[in-house]
Amino acid sequence: DFMKALEDVKPAFGISEEELSGAAPYGIIDYSPHIQSILSTGLSFVQAVRTSEKSPLFSILVHGPHGAGKTALAAEIGLKSEFPFVKLIRPIDVGTNEAAKLEYLRRAFSDAYKSALSIVILDSVEKIIDWNPIGPRFSNAVVQYLGAVLETRPPKNRRLLIIATTSQRSMLDQHGVFAWDREIAVPAVKDHRELQALLTASGKLSGPADINESLNELQTLTGTQDVGIGVKAVFSALETALVRDPLPISLAEDISAIMASRNPQGY
Amino acid sequence: DFMKALEDVKPAFGISEEELSGAAPYGIIDYSPHIQSILSTGLSFVQAVRTSEKSPLFSILVHGPHGAGKTALAAEIGLKSEFPFVKLIRPIDVGTNEAAKLEYLRRAFSDAYKSALSIVILDSVEKIIDWNPIGPRFSNAVVQYLGAVLETRPPKNRRLLIIATTSQRSMLDQHGVFAWDREIAVPAVKDHRELQALLTASGKLSGPADINESLNELQTLTGTQDVGIGVKAVFSALETALVRDPLPISLAEDISAIMASRNPQGY
Amino acid sequence: DFMKALEDVKPAFGISEEELSGAAPYGIIDYSPHIQSILSTGLSFVQAVRTSEKSPLFSILVHGPHGAGKTALAAEIGLKSEFPFVKLIRPIDVGTNEAAKLEYLRRAFSDAYKSALSIVILDSVEKIIDWNPIGPRFSNAVVQYLGAVLETRPPKNRRLLIIATTSQRSMLDQHGVFAWDREIAVPAVKDHRELQALLTASGKLSGPADINESLNELQTLTGTQDVGIGVKAVFSALETALVRDPLPISLAEDISAIMASRNPQGY
Amino acid sequence: DFMKALEDVKPAFGISEEELSGAAPYGIIDYSPHIQSILSTGLSFVQAVRTSEKSPLFSILVHGPHGAGKTALAAEIGLKSEFPFVKLIRPIDVGTNEAAKLEYLRRAFSDAYKSALSIVILDSVEKIIDWNPIGPRFSNAVVQYLGAVLETRPPKNRRLLIIATTSQRSMLDQHGVFAWDREIAVPAVKDHRELQALLTASGKLSGPADINESLNELQTLTGTQDVGIGVKAVFSALETALVRDPLPISLAEDISAIMASRNPQGY
Amino acid sequence: DFMKALEDVKPAFGISEEELSGAAPYGIIDYSPHIQSILSTGLSFVQAVRTSEKSPLFSILVHGPHGAGKTALAAEIGLKSEFPFVKLIRPIDVGTNEAAKLEYLRRAFSDAYKSALSIVILDSVEKIIDWNPIGPRFSNAVVQYLGAVLETRPPKNRRLLIIATTSQRSMLDQHGVFAWDREIAVPAVKDHRELQALLTASGKLSGPADINESLNELQTLTGTQDVGIGVKAVFSALETALVRDPLPISLAEDISAIMASRNPQGY
Amino acid sequence: DFMKALEDVKPAFGISEEELSGAAPYGIIDYSPHIQSILSTGLSFVQAVRTSEKSPLFSILVHGPHGAGKTALAAEIGLKSEFPFVKLIRPIDVGTNEAAKLEYLRRAFSDAYKSALSIVILDSVEKIIDWNPIGPRFSNAVVQYLGAVLETRPPKNRRLLIIATTSQRSMLDQHGVFAWDREIAVPAVKDHRELQALLTASGKLSGPADINESLNELQTLTGTQDVGIGVKAVFSALETALVRDPLPISLAEDISAIMASRNPQGY
Ligand SMILES: Nc1ncnc2c1ncn2[C@@H]1O[C@H](COP(=O)(O)OP(=O)(O)OP(=O)(O)O)[C@@H](O)[C@H]1O
Ligand SMILES: Nc1ncnc2c1ncn2[C@@H]1O[C@H](COP(=O)(O)OP(=O)(O)OP(=O)(O)O)[C@@H](O)[C@H]1O
Ligand SMILES: Nc1ncnc2c1ncn2[C@@H]1O[C@H](COP(=O)(O)OP(=O)(O)OP(=O)(O)O)[C@@H](O)[C@H]1O
Ligand SMILES: Nc1ncnc2c1ncn2[C@@H]1O[C@H](COP(=O)(O)OP(=O)(O)OP(=O)(O)O)[C@@H](O)[C@H]1O
Ligand SMILES: Nc1ncnc2c1ncn2[C@@H]1O[C@H](COP(=O)(O)OP(=O)(O)OP(=O)(O)O)[C@@H](O)[C@H]1O
Ligand SMILES: Nc1ncnc2c1ncn2[C@@H]1O[C@H](COP(=O)(O)OP(=O)(O)OP(=O)(O)O)[C@@H](O)[C@H]1O
Ligand SMILES: [Mg+2]
Ligand SMILES: [Mg+2]
Ligand SMILES: [Mg+2]
Ligand SMILES: [Mg+2]
Ligand SMILES: [Mg+2]
Ligand SMILES: [Mg+2]
Repeated sequence: DFMKALEDVKPAFGISEEELSGAAPYGIIDYSPHIQSILSTGLSFVQAVRTSEKSPLFSILVHGPHGAGKTALAAEIGLKSEFPFVKLIRPIDVGTNEAAKLEYLRRAFSDAYKSALSIVILDSVEKIIDWNPIGPRFSNAVVQYLGAVLETRPPKNRRLLIIATTSQRSMLDQHGVFAWDREIAVPAVKDHRELQALLTASGKLSGPADINESLNELQTLTGTQDVGIGVKAVFSALETALVRDPLPISLAEDISAIMASRNPQGY
Repeated sequence: DFMKALEDVKPAFGISEEELSGAAPYGIIDYSPHIQSILSTGLSFVQAVRTSEKSPLFSILVHGPHGAGKTALAAEIGLKSEFPFVKLIRPIDVGTNEAAKLEYLRRAFSDAYKSALSIVILDSVEKIIDWNPIGPRFSNAVVQYLGAVLETRPPKNRRLLIIATTSQRSMLDQHGVFAWDREIAVPAVKDHRELQALLTASGKLSGPADINESLNELQTLTGTQDVGIGVKAVFSALETALVRDPLPISLAEDISAIMASRNPQGY
Repeated sequence: DFMKALEDVKPAFGISEEELSGAAPYGIIDYSPHIQSILSTGLSFVQAVRTSEKSPLFSILVHGPHGAGKTALAAEIGLKSEFPFVKLIRPIDVGTNEAAKLEYLRRAFSDAYKSALSIVILDSVEKIIDWNPIGPRFSNAVVQYLGAVLETRPPKNRRLLIIATTSQRSMLDQHGVFAWDREIAVPAVKDHRELQALLTASGKLSGPADINESLNELQTLTGTQDVGIGVKAVFSALETALVRDPLPISLAEDISAIMASRNPQGY
Repeated sequence: DFMKALEDVKPAFGISEEELSGAAPYGIIDYSPHIQSILSTGLSFVQAVRTSEKSPLFSILVHGPHGAGKTALAAEIGLKSEFPFVKLIRPIDVGTNEAAKLEYLRRAFSDAYKSALSIVILDSVEKIIDWNPIGPRFSNAVVQYLGAVLETRPPKNRRLLIIATTSQRSMLDQHGVFAWDREIAVPAVKDHRELQALLTASGKLSGPADINESLNELQTLTGTQDVGIGVKAVFSALETALVRDPLPISLAEDISAIMASRNPQGY
Repeated sequence: DFMKALEDVKPAFGISEEELSGAAPYGIIDYSPHIQSILSTGLSFVQAVRTSEKSPLFSILVHGPHGAGKTALAAEIGLKSEFPFVKLIRPIDVGTNEAAKLEYLRRAFSDAYKSALSIVILDSVEKIIDWNPIGPRFSNAVVQYLGAVLETRPPKNRRLLIIATTSQRSMLDQHGVFAWDREIAVPAVKDHRELQALLTASGKLSGPADINESLNELQTLTGTQDVGIGVKAVFSALETALVRDPLPISLAEDISAIMASRNPQGY
Repeated sequence: DFMKALEDVKPAFGISEEELSGAAPYGIIDYSPHIQSILSTGLSFVQAVRTSEKSPLFSILVHGPHGAGKTALAAEIGLKSEFPFVKLIRPIDVGTNEAAKLEYLRRAFSDAYKSALSIVILDSVEKIIDWNPIGPRFSNAVVQYLGAVLETRPPKNRRLLIIATTSQRSMLDQHGVFAWDREIAVPAVKDHRELQALLTASGKLSGPADINESLNELQTLTGTQDVGIGVKAVFSALETALVRDPLPISLAEDISAIMASRNPQGY
């Protein structure tokens, strides 16, 4: 089938740059100081893996609300690392049954262990372990496998950085089998100032006037300068607003609709 | 078997207009302003999918009580889109075991990914995931698969709109793996004014006199102008009342019986 | 085996009148006005199915305590319909494992869809879905299948009436996947007046004197004119009492023993 | 294996008198008026099955504490019935997995349906359905099967009496799928008077002096005339006491040890 | 594998005296009056089985804290019985999956039923049924099988004594399917007097001076004469203390460390 | 696959010194008196196993927070024992399904039983039993197997020391099937004094000045001399800090980030 076809063309070894850069179609926009701070912490672990004599394994958990940019930033760290092996593992890749997931992950880490320097990104790791808060349900075998990998020294002369992303951090803590060396938060777009920077950088609006009019209208609709939705939601509102008139007003309406309707999603 | 026979004649690619229009045998009746508003929001997403450069995937959740018209309106958006691929996935289609469901869905999305512009309607998505509030039980594998699809970029040059319908919205929020770009509410028939518009448009009653008599009788039986039952229940009462005499009175009786007996169904 | 042998002789298509009339060995006794009212509501749905242009599917839930006459009345509606296809599905018929149940039901509805006008009776539907309040446990696959059938339009030119019976109505409401067009209550034998009518019609007692003596004795034993046991329990008491002397007293004793010992059974 | 060997020699049809009488090695001792009353109620159902024209199926639940005599009395009813088919189904007979249990029960009822008049005894029915209050756990498939049998008319010209015994009556009520025509209680040995009658009838003690001395000693040890242990426990104490000296004292000690140590077992 | 190899050399029939006496490598030490009292009660059941005419089956539950001597005492009863068949069933013997356990137990009881007089010891019966208080989990099939065996008359001319041991008595009561004829408690080492008797009998310490010094030191460390740890823990402390200097002090330290650290283990 | 390849080269019998010493790449650093005390207790059990006549089996539970040094210390005891068979069993070794785990463990103990003197280290035993506090879930078959091994006498002339490590001690107590002869606590790095000793011994910092500056900075950031993180976290902070300037400040920042972010992990 189609997914399998896609899969077949992926190289077992090495980085698929296209795949990694596909995670940030607009590039990384510096709409807030936290963007650079996150990248810098991530890269200090890349460097520690490269230089450490005795510790050949490090792990990071990148967490934050839906659409905040976790995947985009993890991919950026992978791209910047210049490691010979960088693998982005997405939920759709690992399959739908436990045995298939375990097999996929085992092969991925086995591949990683073949490279002197590797990065494995477990993207939306809560979906990789089939997490569902109702029950709750999850694949304990996958949880245990990843927990065991996190405490297993790679083979001699092999060094590995594991980056997991999740929008369900509190859930990951409950399992008690995951022990990350560092946890990094990626927040939502905070306020009108960050929103303005993001809209400006998107290049979709004709100019500052349009942007300011949108923000004024938004202030009127919501009565606050707080935003609290992810970068993805901002871009989604922009796309649907672009097809309606007048743009500043329709953009404000769509953003405020998202602000009103989204449930907190456990974050 | 019969279902399979039905299945066999459906084209794997393209729209079955008959199937989509079968969802609204009476056509779409404008008995309330919300009808046009819902269709217009839906069509702005159709347009965003068509025109967006960077976001090839959008998703909508259409929610509301039983028989309110969710399926009819989702099908109407599909028909109006003029996209080359529109697929309505009903619970009866996906089969009764988890493996069959996953296989069916995988094939459906694989087909959709072959068209430049596609719409996939996940009708009564709570039944597609086998949701049962007792337990609660559901197919976590299907939930995870749909959750993964919702965050997977379609292949290059492919754009997809996913429309899910549900009468169990609060349940969908609890899973925490579904992140829709927009949620659209379809309310029940609200009051005597909306009911009057609907009965008039149905063309089943001989004239305004009959309709007004029914409404007066209903007011007497229930002591209120609130209605709160779906379009489907109104038509069902109309059908059983038509076989009894006198029509205005039997119609009022049947509508009031439905108003009294129906449990809220979690909405 | 024996059950299978029984099964083999049943026609896949058409009505087994013997089977339907076996549900009421004493015929339908009019011991209370509710009997005619239930039959008349049921028959108005039969008529709606026959005449409706746009709605080819209707569903009824017949509910009430154990032995109240639900199956007898549902079978009577089937007999009176004169539809070419009427099928009574009992718990013993569908088998003991989920796959067998689904296969049986699929075949039954497939058969029904072959007839222009059909009735399918899901007798003791709580047992068909393996409902057990302890847990609670049930077959979610069967629940989902029946839920999907209830919202699936029959094929072109096919019309179907689904009648389910249950002594566990409150449970059925909790699933949230069943949406009946109408719910019909069948109450227990209410009081001495109804009991008297029933005993008289049974023709088992020699005359009014015996009946009155029984009722007087019963009043003495229980101190009330309320009865609240099903028709079945009345007939059961009558059978065991008939073998003992003196009949009026032993009948009163047996009825009062049943009144005292029965647990409410969730109704 | 041994159990299977035992099984092989049992006739598929007809009564194994030895098996039934093995349930009461001491015969039925009339140590209390309830013994005759239970037998008489049971036999009135035997008679009803034999004579009823319209009701070919009756069911009884015999309940009471461990070792009270439920199995012995059910077997006695079977022996006294003189029906051509009487089958005692014990937990050890039905096997340890659900499929085997269902097969065994299906065959047993199929055999019973071949005889014009049959009795099936479901001994310790809570074990036949694998009931365990921890969880609770049980075989829902067996529960549903028995529930379906209890509401299925035997084939033409076949009449059946089902007698179930249980020490877990309250549990049986919770399932809500069992509807017995009558429930019969078998109490424990109540007091010193009943105990005296039982010991006397056992013929194990040399005379009234020994018995009275035991009872006096027991009164001293427990400070009460209440007993509340089953017939089986009395006989067990008698056996261990017989090997010790002096008999009256050791008997009192053993009975009082049982009275003190036994947990109520959910009754 | 090794376990299987061990298994193969065990005789299917008869007593393995080595195995039984392996349960008490130090012999049975009379460090408290309860030792003789337990053995005497056990042997009165041995005698009852041997002599009873009508009751061919008796069962005992031996319960107490970890390492108290339950297995040693049950094995001693078996050795003293001089029955031709005595089988000690340990958790390691029965295997790790339910089917294997059932098969092993079935064979064991089948073997026992071949001997005129048999004893089956179900050692650590809570592990034989896979009891785990978390959940709780256990093998219900094994529970039901043992429950059924406990109420099944052995074949003609066969007599059987079942002795179960457990450190989880309260759990066994909850199942409600086990009905023992007698329950016997084996307490922990109670106080300094019992400890002194035990240490003296062990012959590991050079004389009363050493023992008294240990006890004095222990009193200083714990501030009490209560002990409350099993015989096994005493011997374990003795072994580790023997390798350290000075012995009386290191013994007191190790015993007090055990007294402090042990959790109550559900007793 | 790779893991399997690694596995294949391990000797089934004997000690892999490389593996054991890999557990402490920095050697054992005496940064606190508890280090020697833990090793000495462990070695007294090694000695007891070697010398005991009657007790051929001892077991220890080594518990403490993540990264405290449990595995390193258990491995050190194994290395110091000079026993011919020492096996370190890690979660990654035992596989991901229950049957594989049981097979692996059975083989490991079977190998151990072949040596006169053996040590088996069950490293992170909570992961070996698949423990997950959510549910909670775990492999009861593995729990029961290990519980049975803990109470099974090794074969004649075989002596065994079992050392389990865990960061989830309270969970192990709940199972009620594990009975260790001794429990040994490994605490986290307690305060600035222990931290100073550890940093000094690591040889990564140029001198006391750097270390003191780090500690002063840390005191300023956290406002306390308490530390409470494992040795592993200290080394991890050291590695990432080494790549940043100025070292004393970046070290303090990284340690304080770990102190702030880590959840207690159930300890
Ligand atoms: N700083 C940024 N600059 C530019 N684009 C961004 C930035 N952050 C996020 N995006 C874009 O927003 C969209 C959502 O980001 P991303 O998928 O990384 O979010 P996420 O946190 O991983 O969300 P999810 O929880 O759904 O996995 C992507 O198209 C991404 O390229
Ligand atoms: N606005 C409308 N105009 C005309 N017919 C309508 C309208 N809304 C609903 N209907 C009709 O009412 C019936 C029920 O509508 P529909 O099946 O779309 O409801 P639904 O909300 O999807 O219900 P369910 O929760 O059961 O899936 C259909 O026959 C449909 O054609
Ligand atoms: N009105 C009636 N007239 C004559 N017989 C009746 C009547 N109602 C019930 N009966 C008889 O009583 C018995 C029980 O009725 P029926 O099986 O229909 O009850 P039910 O409500 O379906 O019970 P259950 O809950 O056990 O399925 C049958 O023998 C039936 O023929
Ligand atoms: N009335 C009686 N006269 C003589 N023996 C009796 C009597 N009642 C019980 N017994 C004997 O006591 C023993 C236990 O009786 P039985 O097995 O029938 O009890 P039960 O209630 O079925 O127990 P359980 O709950 O364990 O199944 C049997 O040996 C039986 O013969
Ligand atoms: N009275 C005794 N005399 C001599 N040795 C004893 C005595 N009681 C116990 N022991 C010894 O103590 C050790 C533990 O005893 P045993 O295994 O019988 O205890 P247990 O109660 O069965 O423990 P567990 O709960 O772990 O099964 C054995 O070595 C046994 O021989
Ligand atoms: N006393 C010590 N001296 C030197 N290094 C140590 C010491 N204690 C721990 N370490 C090192 O710290 C790291 C973590 O130790 P180890 O893996 O033994 O911890 P742990 O308690 O087993 O952790 P986990 O709970 O994750 O299994 C290892 O690299 C180990 O060598
Ligand atoms: Mg992401
Ligand atoms: Mg719909
Ligand atoms: Mg019925
Ligand atoms: Mg019994
Ligand atoms: Mg023991
Ligand atoms: Mg460790």
